[in-house]
Amino acid sequence: MKSANRLSATEAASALARRELSAEALLRDCLDRIAEREEQVRAFVYLDAEGALEQARALDAGPLRGPLHGLPLGVKDIFDTFDLPTECGSPIFAGHRPRVDAAAVALCREAGAIVLGKTVTTELANMTAGVTRNPFNPAHSPGGSSSGSAAAVADFMLPLSLGTQTAGSLIRPAACCGIVGIKPSFGRVPRAGVKPNADSMDTVGGFGRTVADAALLASVLTGDARLREQRLPDTLRIGLVQGPDWAQAEADVVACWQQAVSALAPQAARCEDAALPADFADVAAVQAAIQAHETAAALTDEHRRHRQGLSPALVELLDRGRAIDAVAVAAHQARAARWRTGIGALFERYDVLLTPSAVDEAPDGLQFTGDPLFCRPWSLLGLPCVHLPFATGATGLPVGLQLVGRHGDDHRLMAAAQWCMDRLS
Amino acid sequence: MKSANRLSATEAASALARRELSAEALLRDCLDRIAEREEQVRAFVYLDAEGALEQARALDAGPLRGPLHGLPLGVKDIFDTFDLPTECGSPIFAGHRPRVDAAAVALCREAGAIVLGKTVTTELANMTAGVTRNPFNPAHSPGGSSSGSAAAVADFMLPLSLGTQTAGSLIRPAACCGIVGIKPSFGRVPRAGVKPNADSMDTVGGFGRTVADAALLASVLTGDARLREQRLPDTLRIGLVQGPDWAQAEADVVACWQQAVSALAPQAARCEDAALPADFADVAAVQAAIQAHETAAALTDEHRRHRQGLSPALVELLDRGRAIDAVAVAAHQARAARWRTGIGALFERYDVLLTPSAVDEAPDGLQFTGDPLFCRPWSLLGLPCVHLPFATGATGLPVGLQLVGRHGDDHRLMAAAQWCMDRLS
Repeated sequence: MKSANRLSATEAASALARRELSAEALLRDCLDRIAEREEQVRAFVYLDAEGALEQARALDAGPLRGPLHGLPLGVKDIFDTFDLPTECGSPIFAGHRPRVDAAAVALCREAGAIVLGKTVTTELANMTAGVTRNPFNPAHSPGGSSSGSAAAVADFMLPLSLGTQTAGSLIRPAACCGIVGIKPSFGRVPRAGVKPNADSMDTVGGFGRTVADAALLASVLTGDARLREQRLPDTLRIGLVQGPDWAQAEADVVACWQQAVSALAPQAARCEDAALPADFADVAAVQAAIQAHETAAALTDEHRRHRQGLSPALVELLDRGRAIDAVAVAAHQARAARWRTGIGALFERYDVLLTPSAVDEAPDGLQFTGDPLFCRPWSLLGLPCVHLPFATGATGLPVGLQLVGRHGDDHRLMAAAQWCMDRLS
Repeated sequence: MKSANRLSATEAASALARRELSAEALLRDCLDRIAEREEQVRAFVYLDAEGALEQARALDAGPLRGPLHGLPLGVKDIFDTFDLPTECGSPIFAGHRPRVDAAAVALCREAGAIVLGKTVTTELANMTAGVTRNPFNPAHSPGGSSSGSAAAVADFMLPLSLGTQTAGSLIRPAACCGIVGIKPSFGRVPRAGVKPNADSMDTVGGFGRTVADAALLASVLTGDARLREQRLPDTLRIGLVQGPDWAQAEADVVACWQQAVSALAPQAARCEDAALPADFADVAAVQAAIQAHETAAALTDEHRRHRQGLSPALVELLDRGRAIDAVAVAAHQARAARWRTGIGALFERYDVLLTPSAVDEAPDGLQFTGDPLFCRPWSLLGLPCVHLPFATGATGLPVGLQLVGRHGDDHRLMAAAQWCMDRLS
């Protein structure tokens, strides 16, 4: 029998609910894996083995608590935790101890999850990399900003983890690490207690190794139980969106795109190029400008009083964000609002959009976590996204694509994701 | 010559910029007023006289810092401050010390404001009252949840203060205390470091004693300098919105409505009843349901681990919020999204909407801060609002009305507010 840390979250949750697996046994297998691999992967900022064992024993001794009963959870270190420091990947927050849990963490604990540790984030969830390495090849980046959360799940250290996305910080590390990442619809998961970047786009989500696992976690975060039911569609109407920046896609991604279209088109009710809004060409630039401006506003005090505690790259971003005029940002936001409304028409014709997650395999080296280019449009539009890991690139690292759903249709998106994975893997 | 604490923010800012008034002198007059009145009004949780004097001297000795140079500022105690505790009106946060300033606070300091103290909030900016009394009559409530911020400005303790609104927490205390409160357009002021309630509606704003003062503060918060320019319109197209709950308005508000319409209609290019969307009747109930659900989500950890530290009324609200199904909330949000789009048509015909701020004068007694009924629609729609204090009710307390503007037209709203006040006061 395989070690319990190799079970999917869904398998482990079933075994835990039947009391065929104890939370303590699962946790000990996860801790063994971490002991074996953490020196190489470096996914955690804080690991709370003792506290987690205590929680596991309490769960084993008590009634079933909820859909995540007994599952170890990794928490990106920009989520407040009452029992562990929250340092946001920044020396400015060294040793910082919040008073209460972030809402998303509290929801997971309430559902029975065990917070096993805080995972490495890039600096303040921006672009300056943390220490985490790609579990498939330590010379490569795990992607970011939710680097440790993605790497820990990919490396079987724990079954589920929390992350956030403003541009591509869930989908891209999921792609780099070959796991399923879900960014729920904007506005559906509480953000209280999560260090803000760009208020109009920051979204809480998470990672699992299967579509069902990511959906299980998202069901707790959104409170929408339909995400756990996963009623598979008979067929699917797929809109293909290479998007305005397709020329940036590298050969690995192009090959994986062709593989997906060949496998899905014959079985889909519809699978064709979807026509984007006419003025969509600069969507990524609009998203980037709004993000820079809102992030600079959110980090005003860090920028003002703690400049020496910020990386030069982040200072540059904040300088640039502050320089963007509020009136110009309002014009960008007005375009975004029109796109959000206009995109609804596409979802009359398609159940989901298939589109790239990243420009290539995980970047070589640990300094650069990768370009969020292909994620920017969907973050700006607030649509639910899921990364499908189903292929391997030239250097043996994972690649895949993302599915994008209609706002609020997270449960249908995840059922569609399962439909696709059944045909792709 | 009047004491400097009696100057409007705009007057004081001009005198400070010309170095005819020192920040220290202004601050000392404010401190004198506070010493005289605070025992009665109880606007402050923390007063930092020494720290403020130090900041004032530094400002007097240095270059002009920005539009708020040398102005003492009150900060609602749900905004993080690096140099003062942030207790959110709740024993759960007793002595809590954040690491950095809330973004809005940092923006004000950067513009030269002096944080003089943290002001009383209701419990976690919800309905359970704090200790503040109405400056006009200590037996009456100052309104809430931004109680201390409104009372301190109304009582000439300081010229400007920060607050937040989710239902009516800026407009209503402004009405109770007879000052100008501004709730900017949703999404235009950074919320980082402000204790969240309902994420889709929480808005940072503030108080001044004049329209120009509130606009000055809002210009710094939004980064939109047009708010300081105040180019008055020659005339105005006013849509009158008694709204679906007009029957709840008490005689004082009805009288003030009639007074306003009589004064404005003859000089307005248009002043007529505006037709609201057909299904707008239950807008307040929709707002209340979303607020209860989102607040309960945001306060998951407080509700789960700190129930004994919450008031029974807040526990009841959170229980109720948790019981509202996520799918039902999504349906409410879909209606709100349609209203947000639909209301745009009204602003083709009207520059602003005139509508009640509160159901009556400030409530008698200190237990109940008042009903936000008339503010709920505009908070849900995310529109900019300003309270106009221009009348007095039967018991001698202030009354007034609010103006509501098009989303993003905060500068035009404040110019319209000045146009109205010129004709009402």
